[in-house]
Amino acid sequence: MIDVLPARAPESVDLDATIHRFDSAAPTLDVRDLGASRGDGVFETLGVVGGHPQAVDAHVARLVNSAALLELPEPNVAQWRRAIEVAAASLPTDRQGGIKVVLTRGVEGTNTPTGWIVATASSSDFAERETGVRVVTLDRGYASDVAARAPWLLPGAKTLSYAVNMAALREAHRRGADDVIFVSSDGFVMEAPTATVILRFGDSIVTPRTDIGILPGTSQLSVFAFAQARGLRTQEALVPVADLGSADAAWLVSSVRLAAPITAIDDVPKPIDLQLTREMNAALLARED
Amino acid sequence: MIDVLPARAPESVDLDATIHRFDSAAPTLDVRDLGASRGDGVFETLGVVGGHPQAVDAHVARLVNSAALLELPEPNVAQWRRAIEVAAASLPTDRQGGIKVVLTRGVEGTNTPTGWIVATASSSDFAERETGVRVVTLDRGYASDVAARAPWLLPGAKTLSYAVNMAALREAHRRGADDVIFVSSDGFVMEAPTATVILRFGDSIVTPRTDIGILPGTSQLSVFAFAQARGLRTQEALVPVADLGSADAAWLVSSVRLAAPITAIDDVPKPIDLQLTREMNAALLARED
Repeated sequence: MIDVLPARAPESVDLDATIHRFDSAAPTLDVRDLGASRGDGVFETLGVVGGHPQAVDAHVARLVNSAALLELPEPNVAQWRRAIEVAAASLPTDRQGGIKVVLTRGVEGTNTPTGWIVATASSSDFAERETGVRVVTLDRGYASDVAARAPWLLPGAKTLSYAVNMAALREAHRRGADDVIFVSSDGFVMEAPTATVILRFGDSIVTPRTDIGILPGTSQLSVFAFAQARGLRTQEALVPVADLGSADAAWLVSSVRLAAPITAIDDVPKPIDLQLTREMNAALLARED
Repeated sequence: MIDVLPARAPESVDLDATIHRFDSAAPTLDVRDLGASRGDGVFETLGVVGGHPQAVDAHVARLVNSAALLELPEPNVAQWRRAIEVAAASLPTDRQGGIKVVLTRGVEGTNTPTGWIVATASSSDFAERETGVRVVTLDRGYASDVAARAPWLLPGAKTLSYAVNMAALREAHRRGADDVIFVSSDGFVMEAPTATVILRFGDSIVTPRTDIGILPGTSQLSVFAFAQARGLRTQEALVPVADLGSADAAWLVSSVRLAAPITAIDDVPKPIDLQLTREMNAALLARED
């Protein structure tokens, strides 16, 4: 079951009047929309647990930041928050789900952005939260100073232009893996195509610094809060690729799949810290804000 | 006036039954289409002169190549050629125009690609074919060996993920220029966000080699044919950035704007070869295939 809420931004709309269900609905997007013709827009994906959207503040803040990086009109935050609540409430409460929030530059020539939300009840049992994922490292092509040197490449913006992210996942599958860790051309760990990398070294939890041109992780923020509450140290760092081998444990964290322990990197097995993984996912599932 | 032809591929459809005009038409695209939500698709833009689409063979060949690089189903070439003819014939013959051909991975979960064409009559007088464009060079972030090293970055595929191309054009405007020449991180000339770079050195016409990770130019092919017929030498080469300064003349060539002479590169004036530019554009406008 999936619903969509086309939500014009920044103007106010009657959200309740815009909800419809795909099984009975006609298409709603104009093919001339620059989101569809140029990947020219931004998005967020939120997890939904028990009908409740998770980490709304962090996601809305990142949406606003992405929009600023693309010079889109500033999102109407109050309206988006309300739309997210309505969309989440439309999902069944007995399964986990996800909400995709999209803001595009709109139909070419109109100077009016287009916004919508798609809410999806998941059919997954999320077994990989315990069984883990195999990953391969793939060169992202950019050096770690790309964000400072070339902001027009939109590092740090979560744009709709994800063809490369999707191609990287296909390459991983071709290599017998489930997912990808992108590395910079000068040898630093970046991020996954749709997740953040987290490593454990002893009692330290480490994630790559965002100033190398990667997205700030919303779930990573929650994992760090959990880790600090548990007495672990947390650090954003420049992470050389070699650290993937020396880490005691590693995860990909994202909003719907949550924390997936990494079981192998480029075919080298990595032990799972099952106890910490379970606590981590329990903390992520319990988020109320 | 704009028409759209939603054309499912690779199955055959009754094209004449799918034509409609935007001024009276409802939206046709599902927001769950991966073209709209992931920029996951490919496209071509063709010029239309006197109701006749230009360089159809080259564009269809590049569409097929882009689709292969993205592992999309092979386009039904005969159907696309027919759709292009129908779309072009829908445009007024007293103005130049353009056709945008799009093929996406389709609605998530359906494994059925989506295809459409948008035909647009231009309101431009294309003055820049004589007055030229000011360009800035911008770092594309990739080294010139990216295509060999990291094919998952999709070098050489004309994808819908153009957010970076659009951001680069905004950066050019911010710097008081009209357009961009992307350069590799190791100092070679690449391409413009929506055009190919062509340089003249004496009686040699040069364009960057595509194996550095850029698109093969369809209009560039036509310019080379014109140049050879006129007795000029033509060459695909590794072009160091310094060659932009030493070139006797430079152009950005693309399917609708055609050959736009470059009048300045990073605020350094570049003389226009007006005679050759006029002959070049006359040859491009006269194309019958």
